[in-house]
Amino acid sequence: MKVFDTQDIKSMSKIFRLNLINSITGIKPANLIGTKSKDNLENLAIFSSVVHLGSNPALLGMISRPQHNKLRDTYANIKETGYYTINHVSSNFIKKAHYTSAELSSDTSEFEVMNLNPEYLQNFYAPFVNQSLVKIGMKYIQSLDLPNGCILIIGEVQLIQLPEKSINNSGQINLEEHEAVGISGLDTYYSLKKLEQFPYVNKNEIPDFFD
Amino acid sequence: MKVFDTQDIKSMSKIFRLNLINSITGIKPANLIGTKSKDNLENLAIFSSVVHLGSNPALLGMISRPQHNKLRDTYANIKETGYYTINHVSSNFIKKAHYTSAELSSDTSEFEVMNLNPEYLQNFYAPFVNQSLVKIGMKYIQSLDLPNGCILIIGEVQLIQLPEKSINNSGQINLEEHEAVGISGLDTYYSLKKLEQFPYVNKNEIPDFFD
Repeated sequence: MKVFDTQDIKSMSKIFRLNLINSITGIKPANLIGTKSKDNLENLAIFSSVVHLGSNPALLGMISRPQHNKLRDTYANIKETGYYTINHVSSNFIKKAHYTSAELSSDTSEFEVMNLNPEYLQNFYAPFVNQSLVKIGMKYIQSLDLPNGCILIIGEVQLIQLPEKSINNSGQINLEEHEAVGISGLDTYYSLKKLEQFPYVNKNEIPDFFD
Repeated sequence: MKVFDTQDIKSMSKIFRLNLINSITGIKPANLIGTKSKDNLENLAIFSSVVHLGSNPALLGMISRPQHNKLRDTYANIKETGYYTINHVSSNFIKKAHYTSAELSSDTSEFEVMNLNPEYLQNFYAPFVNQSLVKIGMKYIQSLDLPNGCILIIGEVQLIQLPEKSINNSGQINLEEHEAVGISGLDTYYSLKKLEQFPYVNKNEIPDFFD
């Protein structure tokens, strides 16, 4: 077994710590965040920090690091315009999705360079990713400052488009159906395979015996 | 294609919305949160909302719904004692892990009922899960109130234990090595298979052509 204590974590190299702490939480969702500036410049950035906050109202969060150019574009556009989109990354375009993290000049759109196509649905202000099979339109609600200078961006789900076959009668999405992927750390992509589904658990349904 | 707009989301049945909004973010990490009350009662609860906040200092967040008994036990213990553990769920104990969400009486420990074994490392106050191969010791830093009444619990990584073969020389964790799983929605578990790893991206490394 390998053990790292507080002192080890403080004194390890920057790259080693970045990789370790970014991969320590387990698998993360792979989503492309689409925005458009007031000047109509489209922006696209990959995020692995989208997190469910609540279902009613339908709120999602994501973490932004203000010192990073890519994320600053995204956050600036969200604050300025009030809208953004979340688009699931499927296995057939992980390379394009990953390279949206490249540092482009600020007047260049990742959509164009990575050959991902912007798509506008129902007059929603922010662009969706055409290649993405699960598309979510978000309205910005507020942001909270975190103790490390990062920001939790909170938004409300306003629009969802996904393939009929990806969702069942109970509202559950089958991630395998559209080959959704997960991210570990900063740069490693995983495919997903459904293992098992359990019933809603209440007191009377606890199995008598766990071996 | 299936489309849900704001009005659809508001008027759909509670269960359908719970399932849809809980699964809309994509894959989520499966972690067991271990705590111990001041009275030495151990508690274990599954969380799918653990999120990376920053690497230096090494901060992780997770979302707690205060109205839910299980999570309230976890949050109460964290606030009271200042410590908790995050333990990766592997495929060989997903059923036990899932059933920690059952509502037990408050003097019963999920460790005992689910036959998961508490383990204490380096005098850390909170219990780890013996069956888990990646174990993280956390110190509570602060919590932030979210607009929906939920709470973002923020903690600092103080201790990490994992198998030698699960981590490479760059600090990257191989999730396949210990058969870590992901969660979709409230109750569906997925296995992970490594697809591809890309280099760190900078401007000069953008591929010339994306087809």
